[in-house]
Amino acid sequence: MQSLFERRIADCQRRLERTDASLLVCFPSPNLTYLTGFEESPSERHLLLFVPRAGDPIVVAPTMYDRQLADVPIDDPSLGIRLWDDNDDPVAVIDGVLEKLLEQGSGDDSAATDETGDEPPTIFVDDRMWATFTQDLRACVPNAQFGLASDVLENIRIRKDEVELEALRRAGQIADRVSLEIRSRGDDLLGTTESELAAEIERLLAAEGGGKPAFETIVASGPNGARPHHHSGDRTIERGDPIVLDFGAFVDADLEAGTGRYPGDQTRTIVVGEPSDEYERVHEVVREAQQAAVDAVEPGVTADAIDRAARTTIEAAGYGDAFVHRTGHGVGLEVHEPPYIVEGNDRELEPGMVFSIEPGVYLEGEFGVRIEDLVVVTEDGAERLNDSPRGWETGVPSQS
Amino acid sequence: MQSLFERRIADCQRRLERTDASLLVCFPSPNLTYLTGFEESPSERHLLLFVPRAGDPIVVAPTMYDRQLADVPIDDPSLGIRLWDDNDDPVAVIDGVLEKLLEQGSGDDSAATDETGDEPPTIFVDDRMWATFTQDLRACVPNAQFGLASDVLENIRIRKDEVELEALRRAGQIADRVSLEIRSRGDDLLGTTESELAAEIERLLAAEGGGKPAFETIVASGPNGARPHHHSGDRTIERGDPIVLDFGAFVDADLEAGTGRYPGDQTRTIVVGEPSDEYERVHEVVREAQQAAVDAVEPGVTADAIDRAARTTIEAAGYGDAFVHRTGHGVGLEVHEPPYIVEGNDRELEPGMVFSIEPGVYLEGEFGVRIEDLVVVTEDGAERLNDSPRGWETGVPSQS
Repeated sequence: MQSLFERRIADCQRRLERTDASLLVCFPSPNLTYLTGFEESPSERHLLLFVPRAGDPIVVAPTMYDRQLADVPIDDPSLGIRLWDDNDDPVAVIDGVLEKLLEQGSGDDSAATDETGDEPPTIFVDDRMWATFTQDLRACVPNAQFGLASDVLENIRIRKDEVELEALRRAGQIADRVSLEIRSRGDDLLGTTESELAAEIERLLAAEGGGKPAFETIVASGPNGARPHHHSGDRTIERGDPIVLDFGAFVDADLEAGTGRYPGDQTRTIVVGEPSDEYERVHEVVREAQQAAVDAVEPGVTADAIDRAARTTIEAAGYGDAFVHRTGHGVGLEVHEPPYIVEGNDRELEPGMVFSIEPGVYLEGEFGVRIEDLVVVTEDGAERLNDSPRGWETGVPSQS
Repeated sequence: MQSLFERRIADCQRRLERTDASLLVCFPSPNLTYLTGFEESPSERHLLLFVPRAGDPIVVAPTMYDRQLADVPIDDPSLGIRLWDDNDDPVAVIDGVLEKLLEQGSGDDSAATDETGDEPPTIFVDDRMWATFTQDLRACVPNAQFGLASDVLENIRIRKDEVELEALRRAGQIADRVSLEIRSRGDDLLGTTESELAAEIERLLAAEGGGKPAFETIVASGPNGARPHHHSGDRTIERGDPIVLDFGAFVDADLEAGTGRYPGDQTRTIVVGEPSDEYERVHEVVREAQQAAVDAVEPGVTADAIDRAARTTIEAAGYGDAFVHRTGHGVGLEVHEPPYIVEGNDRELEPGMVFSIEPGVYLEGEFGVRIEDLVVVTEDGAERLNDSPRGWETGVPSQS
């Protein structure tokens, strides 16, 4: 049976074949983690994964990664490993790998068409590869055409497989439990500063089994809520303040298999005590907009249509100008990735896509309301990955 | 009077002119910070600095950086700012900037030579620029030749100016004070784990005015010291253990002018109680090797010769095989940058270069010794940026 990574590499190779490309080259990035489970930060050291259209992929890495690479769980195609140390010229190593793989590629191909040998090879490079490395590749294969890895990988990564969905569900449940806990504290939240509450949320995320925060935890109280990306500060939470709480933690998909980290990401807006009438009205509008967007999700519908569903509801209530951002973003190995749920994006939804639906209304000097869940596109609709209450009530949990 | 950044940009433009290049394009990186003081992490958003051979540089950035960019302290040449928001196509903005700057470049040039208009422009791109952005630039200027920004900037950045040297001196003094404090604790160090001591060192660095640790603080005790990049762990420090302590904190060069962060980096090896005879011998050899390398520093000498000075001393004592790494690395906005003090590097030293001199001897299963200072090349020798005691004695400070 093929392992997760074997399936992903095979999928990648099928797409290379379909686009008549010779090779995909990854740099330390989410693409590398997706294809091999190997996670590392970019550095000035040559560490590249070469995936040919057919045959075994090869990784070129500094000797110090010897052990980590031996653990990469790929058997068939097996992963070729070329280590280099301080006495080697890594570019010469890469040149040798390119020569072998491109030769082999054109060899395989000559069975199908006989002119391929003369065509310049097409090489897709990681979207985040540093110029110093793309320059090396260009110097090694001067006649190559270059494209971006996302042309091949985006369409694979955008549909999450079961290992990924399991991790994303787990991250969602952790965020939900913390959301419920914070909400239940009611009056106990009064007098804490935004920063203190943010730290407490991060402590709870870890206690519930989460890893690092997936992004800077947002606690935006009172008028601070009107800034969508407010940095939690010294403001003290008072009775009647709307509080925007936007947070999530990474979870490891599978520690054994090293399949990367997936984030939680949800937002609730709560009030200790009684909000103003206008607040109640706006909260209800945002909740309806969020529900309308979730209801609109099904395969074949465009990302634009989901944005439109949320936006129409808010516009009808007269707050269109106060909904200042897109409705959502895809989530996977990256906290922000395709599909972007934004006006003008005619990408059609497919089962397995995961994204946020997070409409908001921001009234400068007064308050903000944002309600966000992650959803998965299913065969006939959407599955929410978050399901904690969406009302503003604290103390006694409200019903969503 | 020219500001720091005006001088740096003028220097960059002189070098572009000398190499007959049209343009330098920076991405969020130490190069961008060096030229403008602007510090930001790489992201999928188009944020690029264009420095033409003549005339005002232009930065293209998302609208959200409006305020930060207004604070960039450049007056003459003044910094042109082109903001784009979610409704704009950033590539079109970049295309416009390129057209303007390349036209202007060839215009200036036609006074000197009249055939320049037909020559393909040469564009140097940031070494760390992501492929997605270099592909955009290539699409905008299909006939351009591309090179790496380091071809122009490395020779500027490698000689530190007074603002940088002041910061590096301050970072060195902070590390020295912490080193002295740890050493003075003597018997109190017994029974602490490596991790606990590493945390205590980081606490002291902050208390002395340092910012974040410049790299993972290394506390490697007993046989763990034989691994140059040991991760501090649960091992408890015992009487007689040699302890390798390698640490430093970033300091802000100038908060007002936003001139970036510079690291401290020094290593001492200490022993609580009495070490073995072999340890004492090896410690003395490493200390002599370090001194020999420092003594060898002067303008015109090669990096290789500095490495050789340390290596010869260690080889003569019979420990050549146990000195498993290069003698040092340059330090500036990056903790590791040119010049690399390594065998075969025939780069000649110049006044203002700053690098580490850190020979070590590593005996597997027994212990390691490393002694490291940062030095600045002066007009006629070297100035050490660290000067805390270099002996192994603890409790009562030893004399170096």
